Amino acid sequence: MEGEHKPGWRFRLHEIIYESNTFAGKAFDVGLLIAIFTSIIIVMLDSVHSLHIQYGDHFNTLEWVFTILFTIEYILRLVSIQKPSRYIFSPFGIIDLLALAPSWLAIFFPGAHSLLVLRALRLLRIFRIFKLAHFLFEIDFLKRALLNSIRKISIFLLTVLMLTVILGSVMYLVEQRENGFSNIPESIYWAIVTITTVGYGDISPVTPLGKFVASLVMLIGYAIIAVPTGIITHDFALARRKREKELYESCPNCGREGHDVDARFCKYCGSSLFR
Amino acid sequence: MEGEHKPGWRFRLHEIIYESNTFAGKAFDVGLLIAIFTSIIIVMLDSVHSLHIQYGDHFNTLEWVFTILFTIEYILRLVSIQKPSRYIFSPFGIIDLLALAPSWLAIFFPGAHSLLVLRALRLLRIFRIFKLAHFLFEIDFLKRALLNSIRKISIFLLTVLMLTVILGSVMYLVEQRENGFSNIPESIYWAIVTITTVGYGDISPVTPLGKFVASLVMLIGYAIIAVPTGIITHDFALARRKREKELYESCPNCGREGHDVDARFCKYCGSSLFR
Amino acid sequence: MEGEHKPGWRFRLHEIIYESNTFAGKAFDVGLLIAIFTSIIIVMLDSVHSLHIQYGDHFNTLEWVFTILFTIEYILRLVSIQKPSRYIFSPFGIIDLLALAPSWLAIFFPGAHSLLVLRALRLLRIFRIFKLAHFLFEIDFLKRALLNSIRKISIFLLTVLMLTVILGSVMYLVEQRENGFSNIPESIYWAIVTITTVGYGDISPVTPLGKFVASLVMLIGYAIIAVPTGIITHDFALARRKREKELYESCPNCGREGHDVDARFCKYCGSSLFR
Amino acid sequence: MEGEHKPGWRFRLHEIIYESNTFAGKAFDVGLLIAIFTSIIIVMLDSVHSLHIQYGDHFNTLEWVFTILFTIEYILRLVSIQKPSRYIFSPFGIIDLLALAPSWLAIFFPGAHSLLVLRALRLLRIFRIFKLAHFLFEIDFLKRALLNSIRKISIFLLTVLMLTVILGSVMYLVEQRENGFSNIPESIYWAIVTITTVGYGDISPVTPLGKFVASLVMLIGYAIIAVPTGIITHDFALARRKREKELYESCPNCGREGHDVDARFCKYCGSSLFR
Repeated sequence: MEGEHKPGWRFRLHEIIYESNTFAGKAFDVGLLIAIFTSIIIVMLDSVHSLHIQYGDHFNTLEWVFTILFTIEYILRLVSIQKPSRYIFSPFGIIDLLALAPSWLAIFFPGAHSLLVLRALRLLRIFRIFKLAHFLFEIDFLKRALLNSIRKISIFLLTVLMLTVILGSVMYLVEQRENGFSNIPESIYWAIVTITTVGYGDISPVTPLGKFVASLVMLIGYAIIAVPTGIITHDFALARRKREKELYESCPNCGREGHDVDARFCKYCGSSLFR
Repeated sequence: MEGEHKPGWRFRLHEIIYESNTFAGKAFDVGLLIAIFTSIIIVMLDSVHSLHIQYGDHFNTLEWVFTILFTIEYILRLVSIQKPSRYIFSPFGIIDLLALAPSWLAIFFPGAHSLLVLRALRLLRIFRIFKLAHFLFEIDFLKRALLNSIRKISIFLLTVLMLTVILGSVMYLVEQRENGFSNIPESIYWAIVTITTVGYGDISPVTPLGKFVASLVMLIGYAIIAVPTGIITHDFALARRKREKELYESCPNCGREGHDVDARFCKYCGSSLFR
Repeated sequence: MEGEHKPGWRFRLHEIIYESNTFAGKAFDVGLLIAIFTSIIIVMLDSVHSLHIQYGDHFNTLEWVFTILFTIEYILRLVSIQKPSRYIFSPFGIIDLLALAPSWLAIFFPGAHSLLVLRALRLLRIFRIFKLAHFLFEIDFLKRALLNSIRKISIFLLTVLMLTVILGSVMYLVEQRENGFSNIPESIYWAIVTITTVGYGDISPVTPLGKFVASLVMLIGYAIIAVPTGIITHDFALARRKREKELYESCPNCGREGHDVDARFCKYCGSSLFR
Repeated sequence: MEGEHKPGWRFRLHEIIYESNTFAGKAFDVGLLIAIFTSIIIVMLDSVHSLHIQYGDHFNTLEWVFTILFTIEYILRLVSIQKPSRYIFSPFGIIDLLALAPSWLAIFFPGAHSLLVLRALRLLRIFRIFKLAHFLFEIDFLKRALLNSIRKISIFLLTVLMLTVILGSVMYLVEQRENGFSNIPESIYWAIVTITTVGYGDISPVTPLGKFVASLVMLIGYAIIAVPTGIITHDFALARRKREKELYESCPNCGREGHDVDARFCKYCGSSLFR
């Protein structure tokens, strides 16, 4: 009898946790979102020294409440799915586990000498923010934009990195070691700060020749910042055009779609599109 | 008799204040613009310490002149409209009231202890600048551009925020507390300063590992700055295309669209577009 | 007899100075370019204190050589044109005069008390760089891009300015006077430095609330930097499309041009475009 | 007999070194890439003072190993090609030689007085990074993007440079010599730092007028940063359209073009595209 009940109970739970087209499913999603936000803000506030001294104990209690809540959620997710392994090794399953692990590990490895490391582990709980990705990444738009352009953007970033290595080395030769460009990695860091137009000013050229080279670096950065923009804008237009093409009506003869707006004959079977 | 005159007088006033197709209406608009600009500049100059000491009294007098002028304008707007509540609760009605309130409140609650707060209230009058929106936002172009993209840009900004939370937390772990990254909110502030390529330099990485992570943050920021540009450029093209389609009618013979504005014959079947 | 020669001589001079399709015309243009560049570099070098002390006299001599050369050029331009007034009041005529004026004025008003002002006048000669515009602005491309978008970009800049006034005032209220935001104009300067992502770091928020507001300002700046890009990219596409349309062959019946690529019938007279 | 063997041996070597469609060819490419990366990282690490003291000798040994390896590679490239002069004077031949030269020159000219220069020469070996271009530049995409836009971007950069010269000179007049704007080249450097939105903050305006002018410079920079983006985005779209046109043949019946890649019948007249 219980065996007969279980599938129905599991099915309803699955509907609440994994889907969001029922009222309970939506309520669960919103509640989860609020819990994630609150727990992240507590980790943030706890990192502020003055607040940690005053409210540290309260923060600690709240953190444990959320840890237990998220653990229950994780177990429910495992229970309500047919093949738990599919969830465990999915990107979101790994993220959910990583968001839980630090708190629990802090109990089992509490050695006095590792206090600092443990605090670091605790801070990893901020990665609960990744759980927000559940909600954000379902928006078709950003996924498409990022996946479409990611390969071209990578090539572009590699080229920029190569450029910063060369320009950083040139600046290391030009500027004296005393002017902040104390070694090549440091100079490359400067080149990245400059070419991305961030410009902290913690390292900046001092000699006239250095300033001249730096000016060239800036103008190069100014000109090539346009490249990724061009790539993404272009890919947006392509993605849209592709989708638009699929919108137009199907051929009345062969039934296939994907005709251009100005097509008068089916490009697959050659029969007229107008009846 | 007076009852007969009033509607005509109210109608003419409405024409001057709310419309701008008569000479008087345009003159009122330009005069209002100059008054707003002048009052804002006076608030600005009054905030400069040395000028406040020398000309503080004059500024105060001028501020009162403008306050009274804007109050008269507010009353006239109420009087000349049929349903005053429609103006009062419109965005511009609220802005106009907010621009007036601080000056008047400063009289009725002049307690010595709230002097600083009152000065702050006075500064709110700078929000009179919003009244300029009356003029600017009538330009169809910017309204369309902003409304079209605002949802996508919001999603993008949320993603960037999530990224800065993660990257800020990583930097808090990487850099020592002594190097300026004193807590997670501070580190997130640093991440925003860096990813938006502002780069004040008030907080900047000190350790080699911190500089490496910072370089990654900058390159990420450099690559994703392209996304909002792509969104807006793309939406511009769509908005234009949409408008074009609405402008040009279809051929009365073959029913196909896409004719130029100056076309007189269908480019597909050659029959006249005008009947 | 001389009266008969003069027109021919004036015509040839006009060809050399104003046109560039003869060898002499091109040589004149290149020579002028080199002279402008050299004179600008001399003004620059003379501004460097150490070089001024050592080579100041030589620089002075060279400056006078160039001043005399450009004066001769200016007189020749006046002589060789039919209506000198057309040149004098053209943008380039005014620029050429402004580039000459400071050197000559420095002789006639050499009063000891105005020494500093004279140095300033001398420096104005760097505006000879505007003469380069002769050469650069003839490139059709940039002219079109700038003229097309200048109105929209202005509206955009006005909106950004309005935003910086509001955000600057908010920051003046939020941050203490001691933290660099000493008056509203200063705060507006900070808002411009921040929203344009320049980020000098000479003024930066100190209080947590100030950092929060500053983060909002940066994210706003990050999102709206996309707007001018979108405008210009879009206008490029429009300009190109317009030009392309004019490329396609004329109608064999009425001879008018401007047909679309896929047009089969003339949109003006309705006759077939294919014979 | 040996003469008969040589061509075959040379041909196989050519296949391995210059081509990458055999297994040996791919292995050679990957091995070379790893060697270049490792040698660059060693040069970088050697520039760090503390590491140089501790591991300087090891780095030196490893540098010589790589120098010998790259020398062998250079000789093999010369031997395996039919016309060695074609490789020697090709861009990559010159880069490969420049990457080798510093190490060897350091032996033959070891004079004590030129020690610093020699270290500089050694650093030039970082230009081995250019060898990566072998791999990167084969990606059609970036080559096209850069070549297409390089002329327009140059004109744009020239205009920006002209602008910075003018704005820099104005700031030199406006700000006092004491405020960091000590000469015109320095002021131009500041203008470049500002207009490219890098904003180090090493030089920043101090006087109110200076801050006002700087604000204008920033807003100008903010508005014109859109121009190169517009250029590149537009050129991307053009390049794509051009390639599309070249890919798809015209209809053999009506001669019209613009068919999709998967079209089998003309969309205008309905006849088959394949004969």
